[in-house]
Amino acid sequence: MTKADLIESIRSKKSCLCVGLDPEMAKLPAHLPNTAEGLFQFLKDVIEATAPYCVAYKPNLAFFEQYGVEGVQTFERVAAYIKQHHSGHFLIADAKRGDIGNTAAKYATAFYDTFNCDAVTVAPYMGKDNVTPFLGRTGKWAVALGLTSNPGAEDLELLELHNGKKVYQVAMEKMASWGSADELMFVVGATRPELLREIRAAFPEYFFLVPGVGAQGGTVEEVMKHGMSNEVGLLINSSRGILYASQQRDFAIQASLEARKLQKEMENYIL
Amino acid sequence: MTKADLIESIRSKKSCLCVGLDPEMAKLPAHLPNTAEGLFQFLKDVIEATAPYCVAYKPNLAFFEQYGVEGVQTFERVAAYIKQHHSGHFLIADAKRGDIGNTAAKYATAFYDTFNCDAVTVAPYMGKDNVTPFLGRTGKWAVALGLTSNPGAEDLELLELHNGKKVYQVAMEKMASWGSADELMFVVGATRPELLREIRAAFPEYFFLVPGVGAQGGTVEEVMKHGMSNEVGLLINSSRGILYASQQRDFAIQASLEARKLQKEMENYIL
Repeated sequence: MTKADLIESIRSKKSCLCVGLDPEMAKLPAHLPNTAEGLFQFLKDVIEATAPYCVAYKPNLAFFEQYGVEGVQTFERVAAYIKQHHSGHFLIADAKRGDIGNTAAKYATAFYDTFNCDAVTVAPYMGKDNVTPFLGRTGKWAVALGLTSNPGAEDLELLELHNGKKVYQVAMEKMASWGSADELMFVVGATRPELLREIRAAFPEYFFLVPGVGAQGGTVEEVMKHGMSNEVGLLINSSRGILYASQQRDFAIQASLEARKLQKEMENYIL
Repeated sequence: MTKADLIESIRSKKSCLCVGLDPEMAKLPAHLPNTAEGLFQFLKDVIEATAPYCVAYKPNLAFFEQYGVEGVQTFERVAAYIKQHHSGHFLIADAKRGDIGNTAAKYATAFYDTFNCDAVTVAPYMGKDNVTPFLGRTGKWAVALGLTSNPGAEDLELLELHNGKKVYQVAMEKMASWGSADELMFVVGATRPELLREIRAAFPEYFFLVPGVGAQGGTVEEVMKHGMSNEVGLLINSSRGILYASQQRDFAIQASLEARKLQKEMENYIL
């Protein structure tokens, strides 16, 4: 999916909501079986219930891999289902992959080609040859970690370098020199809104995938106010708040209502 | 596997060789089919041929994931094969995973429990809550990226912080404060031997997994001289040099000879 297509989708839906798909058998509604099939049915219903209100889906690989081969098979089914029935939605494999150049290229093949996702999240610790294999593919996107939403961001990302910049700033500056805003996005957490504003000013053209709204404490309002670009430039993720809005038979209705509520908050800011 | 068991294995075999399993259909010997079954047969023969000369195997997930669900199934088969037939060998899932705390815990479940590996490589960019879910499991190991072997290590890992230390140094110091040498190892590349010596002096008790010998330019001699601890404390990895020693029918014999050659080099240093 191109940047223009994504912006068009955001404007027409007045939503920049990304629904995170983090399935857990222990949290399935009681009437669904604790099996891979149960996971798929749950996610399919959540997708159908939220599709009108969101522009992107973000399955997180950890939640699938915990169930081994069957879990990965469920990820494959979910990805294929989204591409078949909701091809206008942006599909992000949240995998936080990275390795030396020749190996990173295999991860790019896995997520862009084999699993046919639009985007994959990338961990930048290992530098240029870890990131560039995910770039240069028209319509495919590397979503690289910039400043993450978790407490651990203090440990490395926010360390000060000898030139006064923070590690995450230099990481983002270097990555922006390797990849354009048509092939690279950044993960910028919702939990430090004052920094989100600074980061937006430094990178006006790039899309940001923003986790941390809901369970982690960030709010849509703050993210929209501090993070929007001229082209909106945001995908705001909610996972647990939508997936587990209810663990009863009405889970899909409640997921839909929660997604709609977030979309309504976004609508005020998207012209 | 405990640290004591690993050291015992290294001393009795006079080897600290780790064989990296990075399978590619395009590089299979011509007589093997370009299928998941072909990949498994290839790896099984390489494992049998090298088992006497190595103490560890390190399948890299990227090479399996590129083939989708079938590839992950092959990873599962290979991991199970090693645990069943060579349970004395240390099994490292080279996956370079990492995420926020609740998600990292799912990756730990995936590799420690579901796939039953002894260890998983971990990318530290996201900090403490990204690393600690991989710790605290007796006999299971987080192998965290410290200073990697690739050119991209210059981009972030080797940046100088305001206190004069490098990013990788502080990353390793922090991780060492979170995890003991009985549950945490570090990845330290073979391609910067002068730094390997410094890092060994700073972390005398920790095991290092050392990639970068062979195709990337490091040598066993330099790594042993600069990186050994009192307990050896090294797992030196070779992937391509062993796997693709020959792409003919004699691939297993040639892999065996190459592993034996590396073991002979190590023998001189292991008392």
